Formats: sequence, C-alpha cells, structure tokens
Amino acid sequence: MTTEQMRASVLIEKGVVRLEDVPTPPLDADQVLIQIAAVGVCGSDVHYFHEGRIGDFIVEEPMILGHEASGTIVAVGSGVSPDRVGERVSIEPQRACRVCEQCKRGAYNLCPFMEFYATPPIDGAFAQYAVIQSDYAYAIPDSMSLDAAALCEPLSVGIWSNQKAGTRPGSRVLISGAGPIGIVILQVALAFGASEVIISDIAANRLEVATRFGATRVIDPRAEDIASLELDVDVFIDASGAQPAVRAGILALKPGGRAVLVGMGADEYPLPVSRIQARELEVTGVFRYANTWPLAIELVASGKVDLDALVTARFGLDDVEEALAAATDPQALKVIVEPNA
Amino acid sequence: MTTEQMRASVLIEKGVVRLEDVPTPPLDADQVLIQIAAVGVCGSDVHYFHEGRIGDFIVEEPMILGHEASGTIVAVGSGVSPDRVGERVSIEPQRACRVCEQCKRGAYNLCPFMEFYATPPIDGAFAQYAVIQSDYAYAIPDSMSLDAAALCEPLSVGIWSNQKAGTRPGSRVLISGAGPIGIVILQVALAFGASEVIISDIAANRLEVATRFGATRVIDPRAEDIASLELDVDVFIDASGAQPAVRAGILALKPGGRAVLVGMGADEYPLPVSRIQARELEVTGVFRYANTWPLAIELVASGKVDLDALVTARFGLDDVEEALAAATDPQALKVIVEPNA
Amino acid sequence: MTTEQMRASVLIEKGVVRLEDVPTPPLDADQVLIQIAAVGVCGSDVHYFHEGRIGDFIVEEPMILGHEASGTIVAVGSGVSPDRVGERVSIEPQRACRVCEQCKRGAYNLCPFMEFYATPPIDGAFAQYAVIQSDYAYAIPDSMSLDAAALCEPLSVGIWSNQKAGTRPGSRVLISGAGPIGIVILQVALAFGASEVIISDIAANRLEVATRFGATRVIDPRAEDIASLELDVDVFIDASGAQPAVRAGILALKPGGRAVLVGMGADEYPLPVSRIQARELEVTGVFRYANTWPLAIELVASGKVDLDALVTARFGLDDVEEALAAATDPQALKVIVEPNA
Amino acid sequence: MTTEQMRASVLIEKGVVRLEDVPTPPLDADQVLIQIAAVGVCGSDVHYFHEGRIGDFIVEEPMILGHEASGTIVAVGSGVSPDRVGERVSIEPQRACRVCEQCKRGAYNLCPFMEFYATPPIDGAFAQYAVIQSDYAYAIPDSMSLDAAALCEPLSVGIWSNQKAGTRPGSRVLISGAGPIGIVILQVALAFGASEVIISDIAANRLEVATRFGATRVIDPRAEDIASLELDVDVFIDASGAQPAVRAGILALKPGGRAVLVGMGADEYPLPVSRIQARELEVTGVFRYANTWPLAIELVASGKVDLDALVTARFGLDDVEEALAAATDPQALKVIVEPNA
Repeated sequence: MTTEQMRASVLIEKGVVRLEDVPTPPLDADQVLIQIAAVGVCGSDVHYFHEGRIGDFIVEEPMILGHEASGTIVAVGSGVSPDRVGERVSIEPQRACRVCEQCKRGAYNLCPFMEFYATPPIDGAFAQYAVIQSDYAYAIPDSMSLDAAALCEPLSVGIWSNQKAGTRPGSRVLISGAGPIGIVILQVALAFGASEVIISDIAANRLEVATRFGATRVIDPRAEDIASLELDVDVFIDASGAQPAVRAGILALKPGGRAVLVGMGADEYPLPVSRIQARELEVTGVFRYANTWPLAIELVASGKVDLDALVTARFGLDDVEEALAAATDPQALKVIVEPNA
Repeated sequence: MTTEQMRASVLIEKGVVRLEDVPTPPLDADQVLIQIAAVGVCGSDVHYFHEGRIGDFIVEEPMILGHEASGTIVAVGSGVSPDRVGERVSIEPQRACRVCEQCKRGAYNLCPFMEFYATPPIDGAFAQYAVIQSDYAYAIPDSMSLDAAALCEPLSVGIWSNQKAGTRPGSRVLISGAGPIGIVILQVALAFGASEVIISDIAANRLEVATRFGATRVIDPRAEDIASLELDVDVFIDASGAQPAVRAGILALKPGGRAVLVGMGADEYPLPVSRIQARELEVTGVFRYANTWPLAIELVASGKVDLDALVTARFGLDDVEEALAAATDPQALKVIVEPNA
Repeated sequence: MTTEQMRASVLIEKGVVRLEDVPTPPLDADQVLIQIAAVGVCGSDVHYFHEGRIGDFIVEEPMILGHEASGTIVAVGSGVSPDRVGERVSIEPQRACRVCEQCKRGAYNLCPFMEFYATPPIDGAFAQYAVIQSDYAYAIPDSMSLDAAALCEPLSVGIWSNQKAGTRPGSRVLISGAGPIGIVILQVALAFGASEVIISDIAANRLEVATRFGATRVIDPRAEDIASLELDVDVFIDASGAQPAVRAGILALKPGGRAVLVGMGADEYPLPVSRIQARELEVTGVFRYANTWPLAIELVASGKVDLDALVTARFGLDDVEEALAAATDPQALKVIVEPNA
Repeated sequence: MTTEQMRASVLIEKGVVRLEDVPTPPLDADQVLIQIAAVGVCGSDVHYFHEGRIGDFIVEEPMILGHEASGTIVAVGSGVSPDRVGERVSIEPQRACRVCEQCKRGAYNLCPFMEFYATPPIDGAFAQYAVIQSDYAYAIPDSMSLDAAALCEPLSVGIWSNQKAGTRPGSRVLISGAGPIGIVILQVALAFGASEVIISDIAANRLEVATRFGATRVIDPRAEDIASLELDVDVFIDASGAQPAVRAGILALKPGGRAVLVGMGADEYPLPVSRIQARELEVTGVFRYANTWPLAIELVASGKVDLDALVTARFGLDDVEEALAAATDPQALKVIVEPNA
C-alpha cells in the first residue's frame, strides 16, 4: 500500500521546516517500513529547529526531524517475515553497527557508528513513512495506544536513567526538573519501587503535575534550599540541566549515593568534588538507552506508567512548526504530530 | 612490658609539635596495645601541622599525628586472646561503629561515627604505643618488613581506588600524579593486571620513578596535551587534585570508562559534564578504604607490590618536625618515623 | 515494668514443650528488652519440636522456640537511649559478631559466630520477654500491626531471595511452593515489579490463595509438566524443597537465568548440570537475610505487601503445642502466638 | 591466491575422517577468508569423531572438525577493508545472530541462533581455508606464534570461566582437572592475581605439569579427601566433569564462594544443595565465551600466559586421525594440526 513518494516535514535549514514530497525511504533486507501514526516532539527537535545543531551534530543537509515514533508495518525487507505486515509497533529509533566492542558487550547506545533518527544526517519520523531494522520495531499489545507507543522513547530515557541510578524498592529519589522527562523519570522511579520521590522545579504548574503523577514531595528551589534540607537520598536524577539544581542534588545524596545527569546544560560546570569524594558518590550521565523497549511496553501495558496522560496537544504533518512551538509552552507536557492524520 | 607513660610527638597547635610524656592509652576489652615500629608520614599529617585543620576537621586540642603504622602487640584487652602478644602487625587505623547502616552493609569507611587515627580528636601513632581494635591489627608474615607493614595504609588507598575504578586484567589505566600515592596506585594497577598504565606529572624526577615502578608510558602534561592524545583509557585515577589533570583525565576516558578522584583539591570545580553524559562515564571518589588489608598484605608478601622501595628517609620520634618537612621534598617518596628507634 | 521472672514456653526435649517460669533474660549494654506481642510459628519451630534438631543444630538443653517476633521495648541497656522505651518494634532475631570477614563485608548472615533466636542454644521468643541488640529492634509506624511486625521475619526471607534472584521490573518469575514462604516470595516479586509470577503447588487450596495474592498463573505440577512448558523465566525461586520441583524450575529458566533455592530438602540431590552449563544459569541458596528490615517495614507500610492477611490462627503462650500443630495444617498460612495476650 | 577447491579433513561419519578436495567456502560481504596455519585438537573434536554427536548436536552430514584456529587473511568480503589481507589472525569460531535479546545485551555466546565451527552442521578448520566474520578475526602481534593464536580459543575458556568465577587479586582458587583446560584455567587464575591456586587430578604427570605452570598446591584426590581439608577457597572451577570432584570442590568453598562448572559430565548428578544454601554459594557453568579475544591476545603478548608451552605434538592435514588419537594420550597437552604445512 506504499508509494514511491511520501509527504514529510523537512528541516530545510535553521528555522525553516517545509512540507515536501520526498522519496519513501528504501527498504533494506533486515528492515520494515512503517506508516507513522504518532511522533512525540522532543526538546532536541526544537533545538535543531532553532539552532541547526546540537553540540557537534550539525544539520548540513535538509533532514526530517522526529524520533519518538510509532505506527503500523506496511512492508518488510526480504529477510523479514511477511507476517509482520499489519503489526502496530513502537520504534526504537537507533541503528547500531552491531560489530564494534561497545555493541558486542551490550552497550550499543555507545556505538561510535550509531545512526539515530533525526540526528544529522539521519532522517527521523515527521513523515508518512520511516524504516527501521526489524528487531528495533516492537509489537505493542492491542490495549496500548499508538500515542503511548510513540512515547516509549522518552519512557526509555526514564527507564535507562533509573537503571543507571540503581533505583530499587525502598529507594529515596530526588529528581530535579518536572518537565516531560522529569515526569517520566518520576513515574519509572515509582514503578521501580521507590518509597519516596521528591521532585523540584521552579514552575508551580509543573509541580502540580508532578503531584498528580505521584511525587511524594515537591520543592520549589527558590523557596527552599535543597542542599540544606539534608534529604539524604539514595538517588538523584537531574532532568533540568541547570547547574544549581545539579549541585544541590549531589549535595542531597547520602554516602554511597548515585547521581545521574540526564538534562543537557553547559559543556563544563562546577561540581562539588570534595563531597563526591567524602561520600564516595557515583556521578554519571545517560546517552540514549539500550535494551529498554520490552520493559517500556510492559510498564505501559501493565498500567504502571501512564503515557497517554502526558499528551497535551496534537498536530498534523502540515503544522510541525506549530507543534515545535507548542512543545516549548511551559504548560505543555508532550505534543504529538500525526503524519497520516 | 608497658608503662603507664609513653613518649609521643604531640601537635600542640598549628605549626607546633613537641615530644612529651603522655599517658599510654587505656586498653579496651576488644583492643590490642601496639609498640609502634614504623609510621609513614602522609600529606594529611603535613597539612594538619601547617594548617591545624583539613576541611571541617579542626585540631582544637593537642593531638598525636600519624596513621600509617605498624608495630608489635605488647598487651591485649580482656576479650582478646593473649596469644596475640608478640605478633608483628600492620594497623588499619580506623574504628567504625559497626552498627549503623553503612557498617552493616559493608561500607564501614562511610560510617558517620568513625574514629580515625590522627583525625581530630583521635590520637594517631607518632608515639611509642597506640591501641586499636584487635580485628584491625593484622598479623604480617616474617618476610615482610615493619616499614612495609606501615605502608599498607597508603597501599590500601591504591587498592581501594583501583577496586572502585574496576581495574582488571587488560585495563588501560591513566593516573595523574606520580607522588607516593600515584606510585602506589600504579603498582596496584599493574598487580591487578592492567595492560597499560600511563602516568602524568609535571616533575621529571617523579616520572623517572614511575618508569622504574613499571609505568608503560609517562607524560609531562606541559609538553603534551593529554585530552588531545585520545588515549581512550578504561580507567582514570587522579592522584593530583589538580583541576586541569582531572579534566584531561576524564576527557581521556573511552565510552563507559570510570574516573576515581583520590587527590584532594578544591571543594568545587568544573568537570566536563557533557562528555560524562555523551560517553556515560562514571565519576566517583574514594574516602579511605574498607576490607583492603588482607589483600594489601598478600600483594606485598607475594612481591607484586614493593613498599620498601618507597622509603626515602627515616627519623626518630624527636625529629617529627624534620620528618614532616622532609615529606614535602619533591624528591621524597615516603618518610618513616620510628618512635621506638 | 519488668520482673525477674517471666513465663515462657520451653522445648524441654523432642516432642515436649512446657509453660515454665524462667528468669527474664539479662540485658546487655547494647540491648533492649522487649515485651513480646506476637510470634509467628515457622516450619523450623515445628521441625525442632518434632525432631529435636535441624541438620547439625541439635537441641541439647531446654530452649525457647520462636523467632518471628514483635513487641514493645520496656527496658534498655546502659548504652541505649531511654527514649526507646515504649517503642513498638519488629525484631531481627540475629546477633552477628560484627568483627569477622563476613560481617565486615556486609554479609553478616554468613557470620560463623552468629547467634540466632531459637537455634540451639539460643532462646527465642515464645516468652513474655526477649532481648536483642538495639540496632536489630526496628521501630514500626503506628499504621502497622504487631502481627505484621512479627511477620517481617518471613518477609525478609522473601526480600532476600528476590534480591539474590535479581527480580526486577519486567522479570518473569516462577515460584515452586505456595505455602506461607511461597506466598511471601510471590508478594515481594510483585512488589519488585515482576511482570509475571507463576507459582506451582500440588495443593489446590494453596493455588487459590496464590491467585488471591496476585499470581498471574498457577500450575499443579501433577497436571502439567513444568519443564516441558518452556516457560523461559528469568527467575526461579524454590520454596518447596522438593527435588522434582527444583529440577523443573531450573529447566524452566531462560539462558542467563537465576535459581534461588529457599526450601529445605535433602542434603544432596541431582540437579540438571548440563542445562546449568549450556544456559549459563546461576544457582544459589539463601541463608536467612541481611539488611532487609528497613525495606520489609517500608513494603508493609506502603501496602505493597500484606502480611496481616497471612494470619489464619492465633494462640496464647499456654497453647504453643496446639499452635505448632495448627501450623502444619495445609489450610493454614501463618499461625501467631501471643505470649502476653 | 586462493583456488576454488581446497583440501580438508572431513568427518564422513562416526569414526571416519577422510582427506578430501572440497569447495573453498564462499565469502560473504562481512567475512574474511583465512589460510589456516594451526588448529588445536579439542576433546569435543575427539568426541564427535568417536560418537558422532555431543548431546543434542548430531553429525548428520559430512562436516569438517576443528575450532581452535589461526592463520593469515588471504581474501576479504566486499564490506571489509582490503588492508586486512596479509594479517596474521586468531579466529573466534562463532557467528552470533547479533539481533536477538542475548546478543543485544552482550551475552552473544547464549544466542540461540549461533553458528559455531565444528558444531553440526557448521564446518570447522581442519582445512586449508576457513571463513569468519571480519570482527571475529583478531590481528595478533608479530611476537605471537600462530600456535598461540590458535590456542586463544581454549584460553578464552580459561578467561571466561575465571571471569564468571570472579577470580581477582588475592583469590584462593581450587581447580579440579589438570588437563589442557585445567592448565589454561590455572594460568589465567594466576594472571588474574589469585594468591593461591590449588589443582587436583588423579594423574601424577598432570600434577607435575600443573606445578610447572605455577600451581601453589597439587592434590591427588585418591590420596587426600578434598572436602575434609577445609580449604575454604573463594573460587572453585571444575575442569574434570567428574561428579566426586565437583562435589568436593563445592564443599571446599567458603561462605559466599563461587563454583563454575566447565568440564562436561553427566547430564544430571547430585550436588550438595544444603551446603549451597547454608553458605549461599553460587554455582554456574560456562558455555563458550564472549568478548574474550582482546584479553586473550593481551595475556599471551605480555607473557602472563604461555600457550606455546602447551603444544606437545603436531600433525599435517593428512594425519588428522592420528592427531585425534594423540590428543587422548594422558601425556599430551595440546596437539596441533597444521593444514597447510
């Protein structure tokens, strides 16, 4: 049912997206072609749109944005079972080389040859169709919406960061930043059995959302000095990228605690090193995720995580610029683009 | 064979040490009394002598310095087998509470109730005698010198930092700082099977020493820019406390690599956070050590680590001020005080 | 508020328990004296009663049984804050030496010098009072019953076995044996986020109970051959001690899966070694538990685990023999003795 | 320099090997063609020759044996750099699917779709040429012999089993079986820093060899009862497959110790389960290896492991039957076949 051409929202250059007819991507033997149903808008999409780059990744050719995607398989490569046609799937938007040291030890997210949706020069999913290797297209149960399937991508960030943080039953967790990623991290921390999840943000409405999603305590860091609260948490996960939040979070850790830095901020900034030493804290960051999709689907299917409740707006493919703008609204959680609506 | 009084070198106040007759410490039921044979001089002893404090630890009463110590058991508490009298021992100079959460999970070095030699207000070992709980006095084999037994303390720092770093057979390791601690870390890294150990220092003579102790490559960071060498090491251990060295070391790590910060520097300073994120590096620090002594003794007894070769000078109890000065000589490795010589 | 004598149910010899007046146990400096409120009856109590021994542990002197206990602190040793008097507590019924290698590395349950309630020659809690080290008496919240506080002991077995098994969000778990320990293991597996918990038992009523406590599938192994079902679970925990169940459970594991043997059975019996090799399975067992009480209390207080629902009968101190008999009733889950009722 | 035909020693059926001219294997895009220099004879080759099967793996078509192989790259597939032609390489003789759950988590040795040299129906290396994926052909340094390169395969078994066992600096290790695999495990245990490596065998000459390779103690189990020696080792690795040896080894472990079963024996046999429980021992097995080759080459290149000293006989391709017979000689360690000699 596919054609050689498809409509796509193309980032032509910094600040310019345009709806165009482009060739439907060719299908390799190990790939599936997916008719895209829903694509979540991520902060990185907004950033590429406004800046044309993220760090060393520079948009030099027109590129399709969007990497939080779901849809239905409409064609398969020669090496894939035709039985997959018709499957509703969630897309893990990365293609690792599978042969390097990192891939072979199971850390494929660190593969230096990674091709990742919407990271130059790889096209993403603000389009009618996209391709992915068959094993990175995960069937979802009937009970799960295609919105939720798309949002398994940010959920994977929440899973991976809690796994890196060692969140476990009984953990006391502090999260800074109650935006969409912070809320996902919060939901996963609770699903992982955390007994207490404290979340901080400077926006009152975001703290309200966090309370609604189960935060056991919310803190406005302008009203309370987190470092001096002696929270003594086991885990700190930053979803703000804000230096004062990172500093306060690390100081809030008990001896042997772990900090995971998810939010993107400055390249280099001061950390409380003597405290890291005196309490033998572990500080790390996350870069995407690996092997998270089966759990993501399970968490949604079992009702332990609610992704549908994150959707605050939805747009068609011809309104991607509007969608990108809507995603920056502080009242928004997740904005969805529906390329085939 | 002990008397009620003993000679000790007492830090009276900042900058003043004085040989005095003081009461021999009382012996609790679970303790042993040790006639001190050798005490290594540590940078922290020098720091307390000159500054009267390290961070929040402030010398407010006269205190005996010295925490790298060995000797012979001359008396035992009522709960200790009298068979231990006469044993040559290495002292682990810490007394944990044994009942707190950290102690019970095996991380007793993080015990908030720790009493540690030569950390105010606990006396150390620049004295004829010292007491320690029986289980923290480790018998050494005949083949091992009492100098080496004293230096099992800095060796434990080397063991603990390599354990935290995950140094293992085949690891590529970068160490910054080729002072006594750096040299011990180097020796342990080699004993743990590292295939390559690169060490950096700005002092040419220290790099010569490092080469002698088995470094596979030495770097003067003023001559070569470590960050741009793309060393791609598995492990980075900082024994310098110098910000540029820490930064360069973290940038030298391959994806998934681990950094362990041992050297004491500024309380807070900039770290390359975006690199920690993009490569999912783990950054941590060490605070003393736990459960290292049996391995320390084994590494020395088997000849895998040579502590005797670190000793560059030795002094009597009446020359502690001279010993503290000698320890700051850049040509020095370890200076030993012999309280009963 | 205590007297020098107390009433206790004493196991005089195999098959004979007798209510006696015995001296209230003396209180060491680091201990608390607890007026016992509730004591769960365990299979090991029944076994000691009938056999006079468990393996190498032989009852040679009269001994008080009962090790799943709670109560209220009525007196404290000289080293314990008097503020603790009046606290409702759950007892961790073990006293480790705190100085051996196992204690210092955090594995205090493996301490060779352990003193454990109701393990010869240490008295247990079928008595009006018992003593324990202050740090092993855990305050419980007001919302928690003293029955539940007593049953934090079997809950700890459930926690420890799931921790050893690596049960985590998304795990598929198989449990053999739906008696009280199996039901606790099941509850903990669910609390740890297992997506599927399959439980097997030959008693239909026990399978009904398991379903009520959340089992996602129940199997009667006489009706279905577990090994041939190709369940491919991540985790197998045996709470039956039955050889066919252990064999089938190990064969049900996927590659890299973990088996934890909790149930006591024969000393030696055949395991499917070639499967352990070909799938690199990990097989281990549990011996009591370590560092589980804070989590146990949290799981109960948060409602993730329901211990009160396990209580099927209760008896006074003069009916301990009846209680021991009741505990073997296949319809029973947990039988409680109330020494001060 | 390759031809379409090559000579190979083909296992026609149980007990029959024959030198034949067969087609040189075709070269896929990601593969390299290797002119085979040396192939070690493994017990499994001997077993296939005599029995025609190992467990469920049955030789139903003629197949080339041999999986411990090295050689020189003589041609490369279209996706491989032609610069590799001429490289001396060690072959990791397995081809994992790279897409299944096990592959993606880094446990590719457990891939259910594995193709492994000399495991029906996959051809091995008793031939002039063989192909392997480019990333499984590891360049070796000039200093390393092609014999040693071939023997990186059994060395990998030694590495993997010690990694699974957690052998580390200071470990006390017991190995049962001083045949070629036992000797390799011994060498690796020492290279990993074990302080003590005890090895048992019933053949006096093998114990002599073990002593020569650095065993700190050798035991003839017919002369000494290992279980009653209370060795209290940290690690037990079985390279015998003999039930009494496995039982004794498990009983020799200290609390928390680990047993790794390498030797192939009966499918099921009794293990001391109550001891596994009471000491919380971990028992596992190994199935081939994953990610071991870089370390294998490093251990040989650095001289920490000596593989050349294992070679006790060598044969040409027309003497494979003789080679298989020689490999069963109790005086033999490793027998090498040189297909192009």
